[in-house]
Amino acid sequence: MSQEVEYSVFYWPGIPGRGEFTRLAFEHAKTKYNDIGDIPELLRLLSNKDVPGIAAPHFAVPVLGVRDKSMDKMHYISQVPAQLSFLAPRLGLLGDADKLQGLERDVAVAQIYQLCATALDMNTETHDTHHPISVSSLYEDQKKEAKKRAADFRTNRVPKFLQLFEVALSKDGAGVDKKDSGKKRMYGSKTTVADLAVFQVLDGLLFAFPKCLGKHRSSGEYKHVFELYDEIKGELKEYLDSDRRRPYSDGIFRHYPELDDE
Amino acid sequence: MSQEVEYSVFYWPGIPGRGEFTRLAFEHAKTKYNDIGDIPELLRLLSNKDVPGIAAPHFAVPVLGVRDKSMDKMHYISQVPAQLSFLAPRLGLLGDADKLQGLERDVAVAQIYQLCATALDMNTETHDTHHPISVSSLYEDQKKEAKKRAADFRTNRVPKFLQLFEVALSKDGAGVDKKDSGKKRMYGSKTTVADLAVFQVLDGLLFAFPKCLGKHRSSGEYKHVFELYDEIKGELKEYLDSDRRRPYSDGIFRHYPELDDE
Repeated sequence: MSQEVEYSVFYWPGIPGRGEFTRLAFEHAKTKYNDIGDIPELLRLLSNKDVPGIAAPHFAVPVLGVRDKSMDKMHYISQVPAQLSFLAPRLGLLGDADKLQGLERDVAVAQIYQLCATALDMNTETHDTHHPISVSSLYEDQKKEAKKRAADFRTNRVPKFLQLFEVALSKDGAGVDKKDSGKKRMYGSKTTVADLAVFQVLDGLLFAFPKCLGKHRSSGEYKHVFELYDEIKGELKEYLDSDRRRPYSDGIFRHYPELDDE
Repeated sequence: MSQEVEYSVFYWPGIPGRGEFTRLAFEHAKTKYNDIGDIPELLRLLSNKDVPGIAAPHFAVPVLGVRDKSMDKMHYISQVPAQLSFLAPRLGLLGDADKLQGLERDVAVAQIYQLCATALDMNTETHDTHHPISVSSLYEDQKKEAKKRAADFRTNRVPKFLQLFEVALSKDGAGVDKKDSGKKRMYGSKTTVADLAVFQVLDGLLFAFPKCLGKHRSSGEYKHVFELYDEIKGELKEYLDSDRRRPYSDGIFRHYPELDDE
């Protein structure tokens, strides 16, 4: 199947951004994709006009292109959660859920997407720390509100998300220690799209809020979370060391010292 | 299959909230579900402790309960996008995508989830109009910022979302008029979870921002969007007229006249 499909990721050039969640799926699976950051092409896709194959219009990038080579037909999918749910079974990123069948499998797949959605919510909330009022205005025009929102994010939201990831990694619902039962990933024992999403949001936060995240890391309170982070970083090492991985700058993850802990 | 599964929706009592997106799937499909608003039970689920069957911890409600009667086993899924992607194929809410196979089907399903995700993004942004700084503080403590964010939402975001829905309903990617080709839903000709999500966010916005939405409705610019709204409202009439449908009050959709158009 994968031989007959050619993938492309369309996203703003030069930043990891939301496109990175989709890129990481390809990179972890060592599956080839075209990484397209050509701005006129992106604007053409986002215009939702005169692009054959667009069945559902796009609100934003990343757009995933799926070319069916057997029919020479191009399909487009936007929205990261939709892209990850499309790609996960094709790229072998459902981990232990792939061994299940019927209702058990459908539930496990939904639980993996549930964990992805929570990591992506954390990503959205990170963006809103520097743009709490308007995405179409500059940070400089909403600095006062950004400072308030970032303080709330650091105090209330970051610990709540980290706690959720820690529980996913350390206990099951019946309180059984996951390490004892071989569960060292967000879902089960093998890397899924949920682990990649958690890795990416943590990596961005370590750049954007180094003091806040540094404290949480050294506290030991979220030990399993940072262990997961390090392990996934190892699995992605070849990519992260390559020039395909963009540096953080002016995207979702921005380092404004005034928004971080003192 | 559906005979052997018992569904429950766990959500805060008394408000439609995010739980409504999941409820509408059951109501449209005329499929029985237990609607559970028992607060101690919700808090027990959200504690992520000592609840057998929780494979992935919950960040928030709604939580979907799926009891496998054949094994008397309870599964839990949270996050609305994960719930809708689990339920859509089981409740017959994939519309025309259900007739497809292989890659074509997988793409179509992803495009339906893409449209759902966009409607759910609009829902999140609606929430943030009255809570732009902190979800754990009162509206009264962030009124000034709420006024700014709501102004941006009305001016920039509402038209952008409505425009996206309008394009989905009126044209395909090649510019072909959808009504001419029988496509009268967000995806294809039959109601899917995407139509239900768009209906619900519009219904909530008509309550929360009656002046802003009223202007858009009467402008005729988003004619297909409001036609869809009316048609889905008709399909859900029995439910909407029943006492199972909660009134809006103090949830995501709140009517603060000072946040609406003048």
